[in-house]
Amino acid sequence: MKLATLNNLTRDGQLIVVNRAGTQAVKVPHIAQTMQQALDNWENVAPQLNTVYEHLNQGGLNDAFDLDLDQVIAPLPRAYQFLDGSAYLAHVERVRRARGADMPPSFKVDPLMYQAVSDGFLSHNQDVEVVSEEYGIDFEAEAAVITTDVPMNASVAEAGQCIQLICILNDVSLRNLIPAELAKGFGFLQSKPRTALSPFFVTPDELGSAWRDHKIHLPMRTWLNGEWFGEPDCGVDMQFDFAELVAHAAKTRPLAAGAIIGSGTIANHDMAKGSTCLAEKRVLEVIADGKAKTPFMQFGDDVKIEITDENDHNIFGTIHQKVVKY
Amino acid sequence: MKLATLNNLTRDGQLIVVNRAGTQAVKVPHIAQTMQQALDNWENVAPQLNTVYEHLNQGGLNDAFDLDLDQVIAPLPRAYQFLDGSAYLAHVERVRRARGADMPPSFKVDPLMYQAVSDGFLSHNQDVEVVSEEYGIDFEAEAAVITTDVPMNASVAEAGQCIQLICILNDVSLRNLIPAELAKGFGFLQSKPRTALSPFFVTPDELGSAWRDHKIHLPMRTWLNGEWFGEPDCGVDMQFDFAELVAHAAKTRPLAAGAIIGSGTIANHDMAKGSTCLAEKRVLEVIADGKAKTPFMQFGDDVKIEITDENDHNIFGTIHQKVVKY
Repeated sequence: MKLATLNNLTRDGQLIVVNRAGTQAVKVPHIAQTMQQALDNWENVAPQLNTVYEHLNQGGLNDAFDLDLDQVIAPLPRAYQFLDGSAYLAHVERVRRARGADMPPSFKVDPLMYQAVSDGFLSHNQDVEVVSEEYGIDFEAEAAVITTDVPMNASVAEAGQCIQLICILNDVSLRNLIPAELAKGFGFLQSKPRTALSPFFVTPDELGSAWRDHKIHLPMRTWLNGEWFGEPDCGVDMQFDFAELVAHAAKTRPLAAGAIIGSGTIANHDMAKGSTCLAEKRVLEVIADGKAKTPFMQFGDDVKIEITDENDHNIFGTIHQKVVKY
Repeated sequence: MKLATLNNLTRDGQLIVVNRAGTQAVKVPHIAQTMQQALDNWENVAPQLNTVYEHLNQGGLNDAFDLDLDQVIAPLPRAYQFLDGSAYLAHVERVRRARGADMPPSFKVDPLMYQAVSDGFLSHNQDVEVVSEEYGIDFEAEAAVITTDVPMNASVAEAGQCIQLICILNDVSLRNLIPAELAKGFGFLQSKPRTALSPFFVTPDELGSAWRDHKIHLPMRTWLNGEWFGEPDCGVDMQFDFAELVAHAAKTRPLAAGAIIGSGTIANHDMAKGSTCLAEKRVLEVIADGKAKTPFMQFGDDVKIEITDENDHNIFGTIHQKVVKY
C-alpha cells in the first residue's frame, strides 16, 4: 500500500492512504491520525490500512478525494530517529578520494552509518533554504526503509522482518563544511541540514519482484535543472542490504517504531550510469580532466529525483526541490 | 516549575506537574497530555502549567497525589532530537589523551557536538542493559537544556531565549567500541546507546541565582557503587555556555520544539573535584601511576548522579542506575 501525510497545519499532519496511481486519497482518522501513530501500532493498524487501500484502488470509497500533491508534506514530518548508511562503496570511494580521506579498513564488512537529523523533514517540493552558496550545496539521492520496533542486538533476519515501509529521499549536504566538521571526529552536524522525503511511503509489496534480498532493484533517476544526471541501479553494488543496515543500527540499542534507515547515496561502479550527487560527478571530472568543472548548486538550481518501475510507474512520487537563499 | 512524565503504559506517558519538594504531583490533561505536546505549544501552555505549579506548592489542589518515583519515566520518553556537546575541555583533553587523539585545532572557538540517539531515553532508575562487559561500559554525568523552536542561524542571544527547561542525564558510553567507530569518521553510533534522563525537567528559574550566563553554577555529584566519585562544578571550565551550544546546533538548520542539547561530561581542571565518568578517572590514574586501575562498569555496578543546591535541595531528582547483562 501507499501512505502519505496531508498538511493540516499541525506538526505531524494527517495520515492518508493513497491509491496505487498516486491520484486519489482518503483520510483514515478512525485507524490512525498520523503516520507515527500508525507505526506505533503497526501490527493492528497495517491490516486495516490495507483494507482501505484495496477499496480505494477499486474505486469503492465515497470519501476518497483527488490528491493535490501541493498539500502533501513529508510522510513523517518529524521522526524520532534517522540513521543514514553509506552502503554503496562506489560513492564512498569517490567522495573520500575527493576530500583526501582513506577508505576505512573495515569498509567491506562493517557498514558506515551516522546518526542524522530527524526533527524535521522537508516536503518533496519544498525549497532547500541555505544561508550561503559558499557552503557547497549538494543533493544526494537515496532510498530508505522505515521500521517498527527493532530489539537490541537483533539478527539480520529479525531486522529484516522489522522493515515495513520504503521511501526515497534527498539528503541535502553542505560539502564545503564537511572536511572541517569530520576532522573534529564527531561526525556530521552543520554539514547535513534537513533531508527531503518522497511524497509516499510504500510497503515492500508495492515493488513486486523489484524488492528482493532487502534491496530495491530499480534505477534511481536524477535530473539537475531538467538535465539527466544519473540512473544507477539501487540493487547493484549495494554492499550492505537494508536488513544488514538495520541490524547494524540496532547492535547496542533497540530502535523505536518509525526509525528511518537510509541507504546512502546510490552509486554504481559503472560510470555510464551517472551520479546521484554533485560531489561524485566532480570527482569523476577530476579523474577525467584533472579538475572539477560542475559547480555545486547555486540559488535557483533545482533537482528532481524519482524511481519508476518497468511499467513507468512512479512508485514513491517525485522529489523536486529548488535551492534558495535563507 | 518542575515537570515529569508518569508511566501510563503509552510510549509518551502522561505529563505531570511536580511540586518543588518532588513529593506531590498533579495530572494536567486539560493543558497537555504529554511533555512533547507541552513543548509544541509552550508559549500557551507554560503559563497554565505555572499556575498549576503555584497552586500545587501552596497545597491547594484536591487532585494532587503523592508522587511514586517508580512510576516516573524519562520526562521525554522519546524526543525528535538530542545533540550532545562537549563543552568541558578538561574532559575532552583527558579522554582524547586516553585514546591517543589530538585536540582539534578549533576546540576553543568551535564547539564539539554530535547528533545523538533520541528515539528512547531510559528512566532515572532503569537498568542499563548491555550485551557484554567487554564493551567497556561507562557513565557520563551531564546537564542538558530543552528548547522550543529555534530558527536556523539564530544568534546566541536568540538561541538563549529558546531554552525552556533543564535536566541532568547519564550518557551511557561503550568505551571499547569508540576508537574503531570514530576511526570510521562518521561519529558515534553503536558506542553510544540510550541515555537516561533525570526524573524532572525544571524551568531555569527553579535554579535561582545558580542559573546565570546560561550555565548551571552548582556541583554535579556522582557516586559509583555508593562511593563518592566526583563533584565538579557545572559553572566552572564550561568553555561554551548553553546558548552558544544551541546556536551551534542551529547554524544550518532550525531545531524543532523539544530538542535536547547536552553539555558533555562535566569536568573541572581542578583534579580534587574528581570525575563524572570512568574514562577520565582512568586517564588520571595513568598520568599518576602509569596505568589505569579502575575498571569500567561490571554487571551489578551502579551509578548515582544528582545536583543539589546550597540548601541541599535535589533539583532534578536522582539518576540511579545499575548495569545488567542484556
